[in-house]
Amino acid sequence: MTGTLTGPITELTALLGDAVVTDRQTMIGYLRDHSLLSRAGDPIAVVRARTTDHVVATLTTANRYGVPVVTRGAGTGLAGGSNALDGGIVLSTERFDRILHIDEQARMATVEPGVVNGDLAAAAEKLGLWYVPDPGSRATCTIGGNLATNAGGACCARYGVTADHVARIKAVLPDGRIIHTGATTSKNVAGLNLTQLLVGSEGTLAVIVEATMRLRPKPVHSATVVSVFSSVVDAVAAVVAIRAVAEPSVVELMDTPTIVAVNEMTRMGIDDTAGALLLIRCDGPAAEIEAERCEQGCRGVGAREVHVTTDPAEGEALMEARRVALPALQRHGSTLLDDLAVPVMRLPEMIDAIAWIAERYHLLIGTFGHAADGNLHPTIVFDATDPDATARAYSAFDDMMNRCLALGGSITGEHGVGELKRRYLEPMVGAVELDVMRQIKHAFDPKGILNPGRAI
Amino acid sequence: MTGTLTGPITELTALLGDAVVTDRQTMIGYLRDHSLLSRAGDPIAVVRARTTDHVVATLTTANRYGVPVVTRGAGTGLAGGSNALDGGIVLSTERFDRILHIDEQARMATVEPGVVNGDLAAAAEKLGLWYVPDPGSRATCTIGGNLATNAGGACCARYGVTADHVARIKAVLPDGRIIHTGATTSKNVAGLNLTQLLVGSEGTLAVIVEATMRLRPKPVHSATVVSVFSSVVDAVAAVVAIRAVAEPSVVELMDTPTIVAVNEMTRMGIDDTAGALLLIRCDGPAAEIEAERCEQGCRGVGAREVHVTTDPAEGEALMEARRVALPALQRHGSTLLDDLAVPVMRLPEMIDAIAWIAERYHLLIGTFGHAADGNLHPTIVFDATDPDATARAYSAFDDMMNRCLALGGSITGEHGVGELKRRYLEPMVGAVELDVMRQIKHAFDPKGILNPGRAI
Repeated sequence: MTGTLTGPITELTALLGDAVVTDRQTMIGYLRDHSLLSRAGDPIAVVRARTTDHVVATLTTANRYGVPVVTRGAGTGLAGGSNALDGGIVLSTERFDRILHIDEQARMATVEPGVVNGDLAAAAEKLGLWYVPDPGSRATCTIGGNLATNAGGACCARYGVTADHVARIKAVLPDGRIIHTGATTSKNVAGLNLTQLLVGSEGTLAVIVEATMRLRPKPVHSATVVSVFSSVVDAVAAVVAIRAVAEPSVVELMDTPTIVAVNEMTRMGIDDTAGALLLIRCDGPAAEIEAERCEQGCRGVGAREVHVTTDPAEGEALMEARRVALPALQRHGSTLLDDLAVPVMRLPEMIDAIAWIAERYHLLIGTFGHAADGNLHPTIVFDATDPDATARAYSAFDDMMNRCLALGGSITGEHGVGELKRRYLEPMVGAVELDVMRQIKHAFDPKGILNPGRAI
Repeated sequence: MTGTLTGPITELTALLGDAVVTDRQTMIGYLRDHSLLSRAGDPIAVVRARTTDHVVATLTTANRYGVPVVTRGAGTGLAGGSNALDGGIVLSTERFDRILHIDEQARMATVEPGVVNGDLAAAAEKLGLWYVPDPGSRATCTIGGNLATNAGGACCARYGVTADHVARIKAVLPDGRIIHTGATTSKNVAGLNLTQLLVGSEGTLAVIVEATMRLRPKPVHSATVVSVFSSVVDAVAAVVAIRAVAEPSVVELMDTPTIVAVNEMTRMGIDDTAGALLLIRCDGPAAEIEAERCEQGCRGVGAREVHVTTDPAEGEALMEARRVALPALQRHGSTLLDDLAVPVMRLPEMIDAIAWIAERYHLLIGTFGHAADGNLHPTIVFDATDPDATARAYSAFDDMMNRCLALGGSITGEHGVGELKRRYLEPMVGAVELDVMRQIKHAFDPKGILNPGRAI
């Protein structure tokens, strides 16, 4: 076994030198993503690619030897999709990280896959432009990883997910051939949509080595609305009312356990007898008009308190409460962070189910998320050193997934299927559909070396 | 040959009765789409499907016998993609046309493929909702055809194309298996994006039998801006200026030959010494603010005349000029309508090239289109009974395609590749990419019965 496995690594080291790491100590940092209960394997090497040539060499060698390859960006994934595989190569893009070009007039940025989301956003902002997708991990996550998982964020409510902001992708196929997908035009219907097929494919079809992302003009006006409700059900009623009359860019929800945890950590002094908090942001030339409509929507369903500000600094400070929701909950134990999406009208039922599941399994579940998209992150807080608590956490997770499916929901709104949710994929998409997906994978990757056993 | 070919039709007639048509006179209406210079074959039958079962029976029979199947909606295509194939079956969805359900709260409509775009829009409007995609042929074209070609329209400037408004698709594979793609949630990243793969695949992968389309609230406010320019170059400069400060839903361009033709037909009295006309619509709560910014953008680059109205009826009347552009040009001869897209910044070069090509081949070319998307429809007007003129029209078409490619454009923004543009596909997307597309087709359609030789 070892005899055959030293072959590819010896060859790769000859080709790529110190980009190939086999030292156990260094490799430890590349074994896992940020998910808690996902399995990670024992890889034979980590390749820290810096160029397309490095990726081509890695894939052609791995393909020849039939060695599995897991591509990872910053490892901020939450579904185990970039965890190492036994006997595989971890292909890291963290050093493949230059912003190649920003075309101000065309409003597009061409980047290598390891560019950090926040770095791209900052570079765009200097030019008065805006890279919109803003996953919670934007300070560290990479554009390559964002594309692989079709990452979302808070601004999706109005502006859509990563998929809605990509113009072109350059990617390497397992046999080393390079493809360029998409176009820099606004509209293009020539041929099959390979771009949208690669987005969200979680490293199973090809390795992204370059992407051209669309930017928007930075909105000049914004307004923030904070509204406190007696119950999550009231907050969801407000979301429904708001969606009918306005198009806010951000509509974030936090429930009581989340509010309590955030208060404890930040001393923000949010009313923690509240059943729920909505944080809403409107932008664009009608920001104030829209914020007023949101305020009315909240008051109309009996909000306890509503505060509106057009001061950007105050708005940012208010949004901070949502941003620290996960770290605040993590102070209370290990967290199993879920990511589910239901039709907005089914949010009350999903939220009822979460409360019921928390009670059933005697667990703290803090729920926050992107309410206008019906995308929730119920976060199970438990003691991972206690086998019984861990078993209850798993059961609660399972019950939430099943309830989500029964409500016509999606098992993942923005984190991906990865390792963690594979068993829910077929119940969601169907057996024939999964077969079609696997046939497509086979068309790209006939030897099945790219992230095998993951996502699909 | 006839012996083997009567097999499938005899079987299908036994299964589907009068849904199967072999009468030559009736079949004539199903041979061609609206494109002029595309080739159409001689089919063995037309199946006018009314149900999913009809489609399943047609595909399984055709697949067993290896008979090609061309699916068509209303036949309003402009690239020959739904023209009949020799020895094939034309599968028409025109009678498969019920609006199954409109969910007002979730703002989604579930329809059969033969539902006419305008009928869906009208049904939505009765509920205060808006089905956005508005191709020029919306009075007759079908949602199935819109999905197959990823049809655009005027409102794409702000709201995107058909692909941006579809939640779920139900489709039949060539072997008769049924797939459901997508989700009714706002966000969903579970598995590969089969929905976006089917959209724009021009009937080469599967046959769409049902679709759930997203609706928006009907905007309450709108404002229309009409601006007259001395030259197309000035008009494009205005488009660039406008894009930086506003997000109009419609930005339509017409050049002098188009203005002259429209005036002749409608007696609208547009200044036909103008080099170009822009028709702009803004909507939403900031409609007036945005319209004012558009007006300033036009004046800033030296527009001859700018007129703004917030009266919806007047706005509609002004937009009519653009809507009749093609019929107005068609009064002057046969028309070869092109559909190309360039990055907006390259519009001046593309428009210069069109003028130069018109001069070179002594042809009238009227150009109109969706300026904010860089999507132009240069329309070659010529005498199709004159072989020399026809040859020059072909050459001009070819020159425009090549110039578009050289400018980094797309060979089709919204009409599709079909029959007409196949030879430009590989130069645009690349040989490896085309190979990948064909491998994907093979995964769906191993016997190659679905629209063979078209699109990819």
